[in-house]
Amino acid sequence: MNFFSDDSTADGVRRRGFLVDDVPGVLWTTPTPVPGAPLILSGHGGGLHKEAPGLVARAHRFVLDLGYTVAAIDAPGHGDRPRSARDQQWVDALLGARDRGEPLDPVIAEYNGSLAERSVPEWRATLDALQQLDELGAGPVGYTGMTLASAIGIPLAAAEPRIRAASFGGIGAHRFMLEAAREVAIPLEFLFPLDDPEITRASQLELFDAFASTEKVLLGFPGSHFRVPADRLDTRLFPRTFG
Amino acid sequence: MNFFSDDSTADGVRRRGFLVDDVPGVLWTTPTPVPGAPLILSGHGGGLHKEAPGLVARAHRFVLDLGYTVAAIDAPGHGDRPRSARDQQWVDALLGARDRGEPLDPVIAEYNGSLAERSVPEWRATLDALQQLDELGAGPVGYTGMTLASAIGIPLAAAEPRIRAASFGGIGAHRFMLEAAREVAIPLEFLFPLDDPEITRASQLELFDAFASTEKVLLGFPGSHFRVPADRLDTRLFPRTFG
Repeated sequence: MNFFSDDSTADGVRRRGFLVDDVPGVLWTTPTPVPGAPLILSGHGGGLHKEAPGLVARAHRFVLDLGYTVAAIDAPGHGDRPRSARDQQWVDALLGARDRGEPLDPVIAEYNGSLAERSVPEWRATLDALQQLDELGAGPVGYTGMTLASAIGIPLAAAEPRIRAASFGGIGAHRFMLEAAREVAIPLEFLFPLDDPEITRASQLELFDAFASTEKVLLGFPGSHFRVPADRLDTRLFPRTFG
Repeated sequence: MNFFSDDSTADGVRRRGFLVDDVPGVLWTTPTPVPGAPLILSGHGGGLHKEAPGLVARAHRFVLDLGYTVAAIDAPGHGDRPRSARDQQWVDALLGARDRGEPLDPVIAEYNGSLAERSVPEWRATLDALQQLDELGAGPVGYTGMTLASAIGIPLAAAEPRIRAASFGGIGAHRFMLEAAREVAIPLEFLFPLDDPEITRASQLELFDAFASTEKVLLGFPGSHFRVPADRLDTRLFPRTFG
């Protein structure tokens, strides 16, 4: 039985789909993967999915510039996964609050907390499955992703010792985030949208301060989290950490 | 008559001293400079000088990694330059305030303002002299330096259209800084020590916000301005801007 559902290569990047316990994922590699190559777990933002254009572009850069492997999965109720009635209520509450100009934080804290609780074990099962493939093996692992991807990634990094470096950001100091951040001591960068109407500077700084990491850098940029200067992301974080 | 006073090469970096209107400087280049190569003006922090270890290390990286040329001069009353009685009073006031745990800001604002007023024309004369040398020519120019070097560099960048990209940081929103920053619209990075007992976060963020630049990034790091993670500096800023 083949782990992968499909297989295509374009512009030097090989893309394969897979399924782990009903969670759909995508793997990007060099045409012939090198066992033990670093693996980057790439999370997507709220309302997006595993192959949102920004994620695909960044995955291609990891493969082409660094020879890394990148995996992405859909969060519950995102991309190719059905959305539960409860999740739909949260989404409606979020969009309603945004329309009315009300604070999103109370809804985000609840919804993201629930998504993280479900998604962390899914990421860990995905990582188990990928590392068991002979062609990939168990090389160093990193995690990257802002907003919802950080709401999931920070507790994932707290729970998962295989993750050795991470790029987070665009998320505030909800209680479950602070608790997870205090358990994270790996090298990290934190993307910091400076003028986001929905995420205050103070709340992001409080979360950044909470990380136990001694090696951490804050990357602030003008505008909202919709305007990440992707070409400025410090992709040296992972090579520096993995050696 | 030779512009340079001395000439030595070690580890692939050529170092030459020079004097422009009694201001002593140092130039680091590849063994044979390429006319039109980018030139980085490297400022030093308060109490330091043109060949402080951090400056020399960074200059070597610019030369070896990028083939750039780097120039540094001593600020008034620093390094090889005599300190006036008035400057000595400011230094004494600064050290006294630091000992007594009093705010340094009022003294820093005055002293840095005066140093900037004197040093900006010195940097411009140095740039004139260097660009007139056939072996260097007039390539793209950048500026780098924190604290005092930013107190001088920000008004310099406001006054000097030849400076096309800059790395500043570790300085607060004194009035003369804010006024200069509003005149600076080049791509820049701003180093942001997050836990500096002498420079508040709010004051640094206010200054960062004041820059007219649309391309600007904030690089926050734990600790004080004495603990800059030099290996994390985004040296891609200059190549990206100069093309």
